[in-house]
Amino acid sequence: MNNFDFYSPTYFVFGRDRENEAGRYVKKFGGSRVMVVYGGQSAKKSGLLDRVKDSITAEGLSAIELGGVKPNPRSGLVYEGIELARKEKVDFLLAIGGGSVIDTAKTIAMGVPYDGDFWDFFSGKTPETALPVGVVLTIAASGSEGSPNAIVTNEKTLEKTAAEADCIRPKFSIMDPVLTESLPPFQTACGITDIISHAFERYFTPTKDVETTDRMLEGIVLAMMHEGRRVMKDPHDYEARANIMWAGMVVHNDVMGVGRKQDWNSHHLEHVLSAVFDCAHGAGLSVIMPAWMSYCVEHSDALRFAQMATRIFGCQMDFDDPKRTAREGVEAFKNFLRELNMPLTFAEVGADPASIPRLVEMNNIGDGVTGGYVGLDRAAHFEIYETAAGLR
Amino acid sequence: MNNFDFYSPTYFVFGRDRENEAGRYVKKFGGSRVMVVYGGQSAKKSGLLDRVKDSITAEGLSAIELGGVKPNPRSGLVYEGIELARKEKVDFLLAIGGGSVIDTAKTIAMGVPYDGDFWDFFSGKTPETALPVGVVLTIAASGSEGSPNAIVTNEKTLEKTAAEADCIRPKFSIMDPVLTESLPPFQTACGITDIISHAFERYFTPTKDVETTDRMLEGIVLAMMHEGRRVMKDPHDYEARANIMWAGMVVHNDVMGVGRKQDWNSHHLEHVLSAVFDCAHGAGLSVIMPAWMSYCVEHSDALRFAQMATRIFGCQMDFDDPKRTAREGVEAFKNFLRELNMPLTFAEVGADPASIPRLVEMNNIGDGVTGGYVGLDRAAHFEIYETAAGLR
Repeated sequence: MNNFDFYSPTYFVFGRDRENEAGRYVKKFGGSRVMVVYGGQSAKKSGLLDRVKDSITAEGLSAIELGGVKPNPRSGLVYEGIELARKEKVDFLLAIGGGSVIDTAKTIAMGVPYDGDFWDFFSGKTPETALPVGVVLTIAASGSEGSPNAIVTNEKTLEKTAAEADCIRPKFSIMDPVLTESLPPFQTACGITDIISHAFERYFTPTKDVETTDRMLEGIVLAMMHEGRRVMKDPHDYEARANIMWAGMVVHNDVMGVGRKQDWNSHHLEHVLSAVFDCAHGAGLSVIMPAWMSYCVEHSDALRFAQMATRIFGCQMDFDDPKRTAREGVEAFKNFLRELNMPLTFAEVGADPASIPRLVEMNNIGDGVTGGYVGLDRAAHFEIYETAAGLR
Repeated sequence: MNNFDFYSPTYFVFGRDRENEAGRYVKKFGGSRVMVVYGGQSAKKSGLLDRVKDSITAEGLSAIELGGVKPNPRSGLVYEGIELARKEKVDFLLAIGGGSVIDTAKTIAMGVPYDGDFWDFFSGKTPETALPVGVVLTIAASGSEGSPNAIVTNEKTLEKTAAEADCIRPKFSIMDPVLTESLPPFQTACGITDIISHAFERYFTPTKDVETTDRMLEGIVLAMMHEGRRVMKDPHDYEARANIMWAGMVVHNDVMGVGRKQDWNSHHLEHVLSAVFDCAHGAGLSVIMPAWMSYCVEHSDALRFAQMATRIFGCQMDFDDPKRTAREGVEAFKNFLRELNMPLTFAEVGADPASIPRLVEMNNIGDGVTGGYVGLDRAAHFEIYETAAGLR
């Protein structure tokens, strides 16, 4: 196990109706002039936005709105938000939404006190300070409610990259599973896929002897398979929604990712896909992950995949041929994604196989390799995209 | 799943040699006049105490010592520590040790700014403030390095009770697995037993639909069985020590305990045992837990124990007779405790069966019941102690 630091100071407020306490927590964490960031019309129509704003004014605080965040959030709205926040002397960002909304709020929070272009923080610079951010979570997927990360797409270059800093960890995150019940089945399944991917990006590691976190990660995937099936049957199953929501946070605040080299190749390969074709992140992952797994099985001893196959998917270990077991595990994972009605091919997310050279180019690999479990060079990137496109 | 709050703001610093950074973290979290609390001679002899003190003075801070904390820590030293801390104007407590040392430091931290008797905080009162506490962990067991709890024994009454408050959560905890390598096998096994008990006290719950945390808890126990066997073979197995150390924190900071009613009957039943007979806490748990499990199997539908038996201990589910499977699980757990050379009977921890009426009396049950999974009345307490004493 490698040396590490772990720090997760967010205050989590979990359960039914707890969004009505938003104002109280904004006040507790020092906010007085709040910018409420949200996405489309659903937060308005459902009355959620009004309820949260009422809880803010009930504490004697003021609130302005910034709506219109879209999935795969774009840099344009961030610039707009920074300007508005400065003008209105905002001192607290409250995100009502999922990862795109939270990441937009986090990025505005970094940008407001910074003299330069906020994109610097997505190009390697670490922010020294940020306005405090709070969250009312409405989508279980990104884990951004408990993470120090934000992901934004640069509108000019279509670069989709991440910033990371402890100062953008949310001060509090309110997690009411009821708020996720109105999500359509496809978005729900995308969220479950994203949560599982956050487990697997950590699970597939070259680091030895990380049994404690291995077992926790396997537990998360097992629980997501069980609860995922439940929620696909009944979108109003509160208990399934609750288990998925807590898993989404805990798998990504890194308590299970510490002390090991992580992989993240599936995310790298997916980010350019969704940046170019604007598909849902979870859908893109569902296309990329199995193709990436198949590549890794053939280019490693595959024992980690055999571990996945036996411990998670209940496959029998073939001690004469561990790769056979590993391949069975990958097939079992694909079958589960199919159960969720998730796409597995380029065609299903509207991606054009002819774009592969461009996708590889955007990954900026050069002569190096990416990832942690199996290092991927340019040729490997081609092979994985081609597999996902059905060209192999 | 029940509504809950979760908050774990401790900064964890994990890995080889990281205790040399203690001074830096004391400074980061605002300390200048530090009281270093420790136990016996080993911290002195090993040079650990000097190294940590050097790291403090290297930052331009000052340090005084309070040594002599014993297992099952007593109130007397706390009073002494509070007086000394006030006299020396201490503004930071740094614990070097395991649960007993950390809990003594936490209690001094609560007591210094408080006008009354610190025992108030062990009798239901919540402290409003406390001095900041840091930890250099040398025993993986109690989880106190990441918890809001302190457990102290009142020397006059032999009451061993707990205080709980967010303000005594450590600001930072340094966790170097190497520091645990000098622990004798018995203490190591006691720690593993305590860690497993912290999983089971949460696992056995009447709350339904807590699959995500169930799976994580099962993962911790599975990992502790694997790593426990390794470390009993080779006390210098760094990787096993590291896995056990991280598990000890994460299983007790409550990230896996949220949203469910917890049990804690084994701890209640054990605390009076170790208070009276001064046995190691982990040894007491090893005696009590299987007796408590056997009682619960016979006084419930036993399905949670069948779940434990199948998922953790690999037993086959007997769908005609789930209690048979549950009983097999309890036996498998006892066999694992035996592998660790842990005691299973009153006699092995020097406890007198004739003391049972006194132990039950000390539990202050009255006409009520204790616990969460199966409520235990006075008669049940007698039965469990009698089972542990071999009288049944």
